[in-house]
Amino acid sequence: MLKIKDMYIGETVSTTLLVKSAEIKLTKAQKPYLFAELTDGTDTIQAQDWEFGNNQPPAKNAVIDIVATVTEYMGKKQLKLFTMKPSNVSVETFAPSGDVDVEEYVAKAKALMESITNQYARDIVVQVFNDNAKLWKTTPGAKGVHHAFVSGLLKHTVDVATKAKAIAELTPMCNVDLVVAGALLHDMGKLWTYELNGAVIEMTDQGQMLEHIMLGAMKLEKYRTPENSAVLDLILHIVSSHHGELEYGSPTTPRFLEAIIVHYADSVDAKAQIIIEANNRVNTDAKFTDKIWAFGNKQMFTQYYVHEVMQ
Amino acid sequence: MLKIKDMYIGETVSTTLLVKSAEIKLTKAQKPYLFAELTDGTDTIQAQDWEFGNNQPPAKNAVIDIVATVTEYMGKKQLKLFTMKPSNVSVETFAPSGDVDVEEYVAKAKALMESITNQYARDIVVQVFNDNAKLWKTTPGAKGVHHAFVSGLLKHTVDVATKAKAIAELTPMCNVDLVVAGALLHDMGKLWTYELNGAVIEMTDQGQMLEHIMLGAMKLEKYRTPENSAVLDLILHIVSSHHGELEYGSPTTPRFLEAIIVHYADSVDAKAQIIIEANNRVNTDAKFTDKIWAFGNKQMFTQYYVHEVMQ
Amino acid sequence: MLKIKDMYIGETVSTTLLVKSAEIKLTKAQKPYLFAELTDGTDTIQAQDWEFGNNQPPAKNAVIDIVATVTEYMGKKQLKLFTMKPSNVSVETFAPSGDVDVEEYVAKAKALMESITNQYARDIVVQVFNDNAKLWKTTPGAKGVHHAFVSGLLKHTVDVATKAKAIAELTPMCNVDLVVAGALLHDMGKLWTYELNGAVIEMTDQGQMLEHIMLGAMKLEKYRTPENSAVLDLILHIVSSHHGELEYGSPTTPRFLEAIIVHYADSVDAKAQIIIEANNRVNTDAKFTDKIWAFGNKQMFTQYYVHEVMQ
Amino acid sequence: MLKIKDMYIGETVSTTLLVKSAEIKLTKAQKPYLFAELTDGTDTIQAQDWEFGNNQPPAKNAVIDIVATVTEYMGKKQLKLFTMKPSNVSVETFAPSGDVDVEEYVAKAKALMESITNQYARDIVVQVFNDNAKLWKTTPGAKGVHHAFVSGLLKHTVDVATKAKAIAELTPMCNVDLVVAGALLHDMGKLWTYELNGAVIEMTDQGQMLEHIMLGAMKLEKYRTPENSAVLDLILHIVSSHHGELEYGSPTTPRFLEAIIVHYADSVDAKAQIIIEANNRVNTDAKFTDKIWAFGNKQMFTQYYVHEVMQ
Amino acid sequence: MLKIKDMYIGETVSTTLLVKSAEIKLTKAQKPYLFAELTDGTDTIQAQDWEFGNNQPPAKNAVIDIVATVTEYMGKKQLKLFTMKPSNVSVETFAPSGDVDVEEYVAKAKALMESITNQYARDIVVQVFNDNAKLWKTTPGAKGVHHAFVSGLLKHTVDVATKAKAIAELTPMCNVDLVVAGALLHDMGKLWTYELNGAVIEMTDQGQMLEHIMLGAMKLEKYRTPENSAVLDLILHIVSSHHGELEYGSPTTPRFLEAIIVHYADSVDAKAQIIIEANNRVNTDAKFTDKIWAFGNKQMFTQYYVHEVMQ
Amino acid sequence: MLKIKDMYIGETVSTTLLVKSAEIKLTKAQKPYLFAELTDGTDTIQAQDWEFGNNQPPAKNAVIDIVATVTEYMGKKQLKLFTMKPSNVSVETFAPSGDVDVEEYVAKAKALMESITNQYARDIVVQVFNDNAKLWKTTPGAKGVHHAFVSGLLKHTVDVATKAKAIAELTPMCNVDLVVAGALLHDMGKLWTYELNGAVIEMTDQGQMLEHIMLGAMKLEKYRTPENSAVLDLILHIVSSHHGELEYGSPTTPRFLEAIIVHYADSVDAKAQIIIEANNRVNTDAKFTDKIWAFGNKQMFTQYYVHEVMQ
Repeated sequence: MLKIKDMYIGETVSTTLLVKSAEIKLTKAQKPYLFAELTDGTDTIQAQDWEFGNNQPPAKNAVIDIVATVTEYMGKKQLKLFTMKPSNVSVETFAPSGDVDVEEYVAKAKALMESITNQYARDIVVQVFNDNAKLWKTTPGAKGVHHAFVSGLLKHTVDVATKAKAIAELTPMCNVDLVVAGALLHDMGKLWTYELNGAVIEMTDQGQMLEHIMLGAMKLEKYRTPENSAVLDLILHIVSSHHGELEYGSPTTPRFLEAIIVHYADSVDAKAQIIIEANNRVNTDAKFTDKIWAFGNKQMFTQYYVHEVMQ
Repeated sequence: MLKIKDMYIGETVSTTLLVKSAEIKLTKAQKPYLFAELTDGTDTIQAQDWEFGNNQPPAKNAVIDIVATVTEYMGKKQLKLFTMKPSNVSVETFAPSGDVDVEEYVAKAKALMESITNQYARDIVVQVFNDNAKLWKTTPGAKGVHHAFVSGLLKHTVDVATKAKAIAELTPMCNVDLVVAGALLHDMGKLWTYELNGAVIEMTDQGQMLEHIMLGAMKLEKYRTPENSAVLDLILHIVSSHHGELEYGSPTTPRFLEAIIVHYADSVDAKAQIIIEANNRVNTDAKFTDKIWAFGNKQMFTQYYVHEVMQ
Repeated sequence: MLKIKDMYIGETVSTTLLVKSAEIKLTKAQKPYLFAELTDGTDTIQAQDWEFGNNQPPAKNAVIDIVATVTEYMGKKQLKLFTMKPSNVSVETFAPSGDVDVEEYVAKAKALMESITNQYARDIVVQVFNDNAKLWKTTPGAKGVHHAFVSGLLKHTVDVATKAKAIAELTPMCNVDLVVAGALLHDMGKLWTYELNGAVIEMTDQGQMLEHIMLGAMKLEKYRTPENSAVLDLILHIVSSHHGELEYGSPTTPRFLEAIIVHYADSVDAKAQIIIEANNRVNTDAKFTDKIWAFGNKQMFTQYYVHEVMQ
Repeated sequence: MLKIKDMYIGETVSTTLLVKSAEIKLTKAQKPYLFAELTDGTDTIQAQDWEFGNNQPPAKNAVIDIVATVTEYMGKKQLKLFTMKPSNVSVETFAPSGDVDVEEYVAKAKALMESITNQYARDIVVQVFNDNAKLWKTTPGAKGVHHAFVSGLLKHTVDVATKAKAIAELTPMCNVDLVVAGALLHDMGKLWTYELNGAVIEMTDQGQMLEHIMLGAMKLEKYRTPENSAVLDLILHIVSSHHGELEYGSPTTPRFLEAIIVHYADSVDAKAQIIIEANNRVNTDAKFTDKIWAFGNKQMFTQYYVHEVMQ
Repeated sequence: MLKIKDMYIGETVSTTLLVKSAEIKLTKAQKPYLFAELTDGTDTIQAQDWEFGNNQPPAKNAVIDIVATVTEYMGKKQLKLFTMKPSNVSVETFAPSGDVDVEEYVAKAKALMESITNQYARDIVVQVFNDNAKLWKTTPGAKGVHHAFVSGLLKHTVDVATKAKAIAELTPMCNVDLVVAGALLHDMGKLWTYELNGAVIEMTDQGQMLEHIMLGAMKLEKYRTPENSAVLDLILHIVSSHHGELEYGSPTTPRFLEAIIVHYADSVDAKAQIIIEANNRVNTDAKFTDKIWAFGNKQMFTQYYVHEVMQ
Repeated sequence: MLKIKDMYIGETVSTTLLVKSAEIKLTKAQKPYLFAELTDGTDTIQAQDWEFGNNQPPAKNAVIDIVATVTEYMGKKQLKLFTMKPSNVSVETFAPSGDVDVEEYVAKAKALMESITNQYARDIVVQVFNDNAKLWKTTPGAKGVHHAFVSGLLKHTVDVATKAKAIAELTPMCNVDLVVAGALLHDMGKLWTYELNGAVIEMTDQGQMLEHIMLGAMKLEKYRTPENSAVLDLILHIVSSHHGELEYGSPTTPRFLEAIIVHYADSVDAKAQIIIEANNRVNTDAKFTDKIWAFGNKQMFTQYYVHEVMQ
């Protein structure tokens, strides 16, 4: 299917898109028309059907085959719709994508698990992944800010564990097993916190009421045995404390070295991902990104600029 | 047994006390003597045995029968020990006491439970109390600040539930059942957070690593059934949010009216108890309490002064 | 008069409304028309008169008799005006209403006053109410957030005193008289802080310069006699400290139990009212309220949802 | 009378001092002796009477004639007492002194008042000073931190008004009259907040319950007339907002230029005085002051060092 | 040239303005037209050329001669453009102006420098001014908030030094030389932080990366000699600490009296300028300014109102 | 020389120690004696010479040969001094040691520098190290908290650069050269902030006035050339922003990915070092460290405990 980024102004296109929202508006002359936001999973485009009249607009998450002319308004592409009908393409096709290679990340996760030499820790991690294998493959990492795409949780989890392992191996007195196990499970509660509704990421009721740290601990508790109990408590503490400070939602602050390392690996991976996503949203010749809320609503210098200076 | 508050300076006493700490010190003249802190469960007194020599001092939590003279130093009573031997009196006798009438409070708890008309909520609460009946009767409410005595958790729980119910009944749109159930369980995680070690209140390892909100949720999750699931989530949310703000250790802030009411009932009961305990520590003719950390390290006007003005 | 909520799209209506704002706008074709916001005291509706031309628009707070067709735009009702003329209906009819039964609340206030056994405290409270009887019946509780309607201050005052009395009666060492007197007067400064300008709630200049805590204290000071002086100071302290913390505008923090209880009763009544008003703004089948600034700009679960789960 | 700073180690002195505190202590050998802290109004010295026995120690604020030897302990002067008897010297002699020339400062205050051209403002200020003339001459500015000495309030008031007037005269759009009037009254509530108890500065009950901003406003309100009402509100706002931020105890923040200028003049005078007092406590060859709580508990470079570098 | 404030609705005007932004928009009927924001250096006005078609809009910072009719829309003046052509007037003419008399301020700066008796301090200051004479005459003081106009830095610098000198002369122990030198250099880093791009104030890359405190210190370091080294460190400390607190961007807090005085003189000048600029933006009969972000987003009472009350 | 940890109670020892402090005290019987704190560079011990009389105590940083008996007091070793005389051993021998292998760390630093492929960045780093080679080898990293020992800065610098490089290599879009260069120079200002005074780490005057971030930037600026200017600005930004937030002393917050990574690598290395030093201060069978200020004054679980659970 034709992607939005490959549409050119002036041409007439036939393609399939998903409806994010649609409503009837009125022109100044009080004539009703259809106004819709359509997505291909990566980008979103506004569309009008000036002859739509007072018909029923398509539902949120509907997938539609369209014919339209690509126009321009205020420097952005728009679609002037001619025809529009229900499509056979599945909704999932349009879910927000971060281009995660799921198989590659599953393999990385397995390698990390296998690197854990402590049997209790390894078994807990393996069981949590096996018991929720399907959720791990698709769950987004968030609703916004960073990793807000299908498989975002898996990507973030593996990337944090990889970075945490690298730091741990450079740190005296640190138990690498515990860092890897804690990192792999630190955000596991997000499996029940975020879900795809059609192509829209939403928070579950449980997610809203309990948030991912609490949910992770509640689920992890089920794996307790008399033998693994002390190990499980250490892992639970890493889950509980990984936001680092109470005001960021952690009911406890880190109390041993491994919890500190997972906290910082989580922070640096999240912040780096925000930067990367912001760079992906601007042209490669831009000096500044858009304003980023997570960085004091400042514009960041782009990595393109940094690399140009450092070439 | 003779209580410390009933000892008079100059008299010789025979009684039984518990050792909170004991060590060998040296006089300026380098002569070794025993220095100990002894408690009757309510008050603590310093004691010296000047002829103790380099013998092994009694262990922490040892219960001892003593003969001693009551002396005074810097305005405080002290004990000059003559004899000291192991006692048959149990350690529990000396645990910090808040004079809680356990049977009365258990009865109040039962009445509150029985007032819950929603079957799922009532069953969850009843089971949590029945499954941990022994712990509920003794667990302290904290290590310090307020309710730091045997059965302190039971007292605080029932008092919060009583206050929360009163507020709820005065508040339109409020579900009283949910307030009562949530209040009765809001601090349940403290059952596994605090414990008596002899006569000393200590935090468990789990308490240090996970704190009582997380522990409560982990334990409560075990009571989930397909039928009670939505009710349980509401109660779990009250547990999770009852500190009101993230920076006070709640991983979520209150998201419905009942959670807000339990939060405020908890706060006002805690603050009132701090005031009451501070008043109990000063004479009834004092105008000011000692400085109280929880109130910006200020001295409060005593309730004795307030009542005198308002008589 | 026909209320906005009882207007149906497509029908032509004759009714009386108040002008909140009105101005001449231009169509894209540069033709002048009237754009106005009209209110019935509860709801607000936008209205256009496309043939109004460059005439003088009606003034803010003007009451007008209109004939109009009810139209719909972006899912909301609008009025297409045909005729519009000055009305005889009084402006007061359109003041924001919280449906407070003033007589009922005056009676409740009297009962609370009569429950005060300390003569000095009772006399002060009674005089403050008698000397400002008319203001008490109408003054709003705020410009926004909660109790922003006629008689909102009376309602909030009585509700806080009722809740504070209930808590006080459950709290050892607490002087109930002082709690009731303090609660009844805690927000008295708002009598001179908020006022109705036509149907719009505004802050007075004094309110802006001194805020209600300071204004309350300044007015209360006038009731000092040699006999009631110590009692008055206790009440003044409750007024001064009822926001609980300096950063919320209290020049002192609570220094005795009764001040703490009034502070929490005030907080829980305010927060509950915010929830109730937010629930009143959504349909009874909604799961979430709109975002609420006072709760971290989060959407709350509705009380309708809570009651459905707890039924 | 001989001042402490003029006592030399080894000599025997006869002088008169005030008792700040006194108690019976025990030597290691359990022999009772008198331990006292004595002041000459500027400095404080520790004293022991080794032969005092179990007699009644002198009361706080007692003035005593003593004969003693000056000794040294840990680098500080001490007094070994031989005789001690009640003195005829008045307690006031020993009140903490900041060497304020009261007549000079009263004259400065009068000149500032006379510079006010607005009749209402000038009359209010003059009346407040005349009605409380005696209190103005003696009241301390605080219990500690800065200006904690007799007439400290008068000195601070005049110094702030002088600085504020200088800034105002350099600031376009500023009404100098209002700045001078507001500055002269900004701390007037301290007249009823601090008092001398013998030679000890204490907070009054009213001061503890209401603090000086509230007390100032309550007292100032009594001067309202129909004619001066608008002017009085402006002055009251300066009183109310002079701490600049709610968290520093101001119930309102500054809302016009003159309030801002008084706030900053107050701040810079207070901070400068802290520096000056800290410099006065160290030798003139010191590079650093002691740690100062008001400056993040840091040591400041001394002004002696600054002048040496800048000479 | 005709200024925007002197244009009257209905008349046809010929004048020269600068383009702040310009783009092609579409009418509802999809007809392209030119929409532009034009400035005379003080005020900005919106303009439309309805017959512009799809021509290339003028560039940002272009200076144009226009003929237009002055219209009104939503209470504001607009321009309906008839002709528009490139002008010979220079861009600098339209840079934001604060009506600073540069020669007067340069003279004031020189007088302040000459008042410094310490040779090292005076030489440093004189050199910094001489070496950057051209930048001092034009650099703005900021991008917004206050002093955001040509020569704003010079005006702020001199005004702060004048106020700081006045305070210093009223403060015992204070070295006036150091205050004047520190005040004159406190914001010198802004010379390389802000720059005019045409008529638009922008931050330099260095400004964004290092901010003016760091930049000032880096540049000032170049003036170090063995003889002036200790003096330079004192001045550098004033530069470093002049924001008063770390959270406002100062890497150190003030450590001696002179640094404190410069900090407060800077604060009060900045706050006063914000007030003055806000008053200049409203009519002289207004009671309130617009909301001001720097004052908690509150509206301030105007100085016109203050003077009316105080007349 | 005999180390303090190898002294046994009861034995008589001859060794060389450094005086950290020494003063004359008085016994209760008013007999003067010497009280001193002595260090071997790692540990500190208290010592008394009861027969010292009123002689001149040894100076701070004096190195002394002693003969003494090892005694015990309150569970800690003490020295009862018999003879004490000036030693030939150098003061440097007793400087606080972190057992840093300087040659190893210099080699690591060189390898990191050589890994930088950008010529400008590499040259700047190499010059900064070469120009200050001697300081790099000895300067401590702090006065306390962590790395407060000789060569602590070198160790921290290399460890941060190593960790930052590892993270950078795992992060898409990241310029590893810039991370390594920035990490190696991020704390360079500490070369002029901390210094050894004998065996005591002190802050320089410049360090107190300007702190290490400002000092680093001032020194780094000297390396600017027309060619390396843009690269130098990027490195200067990393120096400026490496504390991450303004309230921690950074005048700017990170504005590109590499600055973020250096900030987190710095944080995790500092926090890990605090943990490691705290573990080194307790026995290997301890479950908890002492309270640590940097972690909310909490006791941490020891790494010994973690490893025991995870074995």
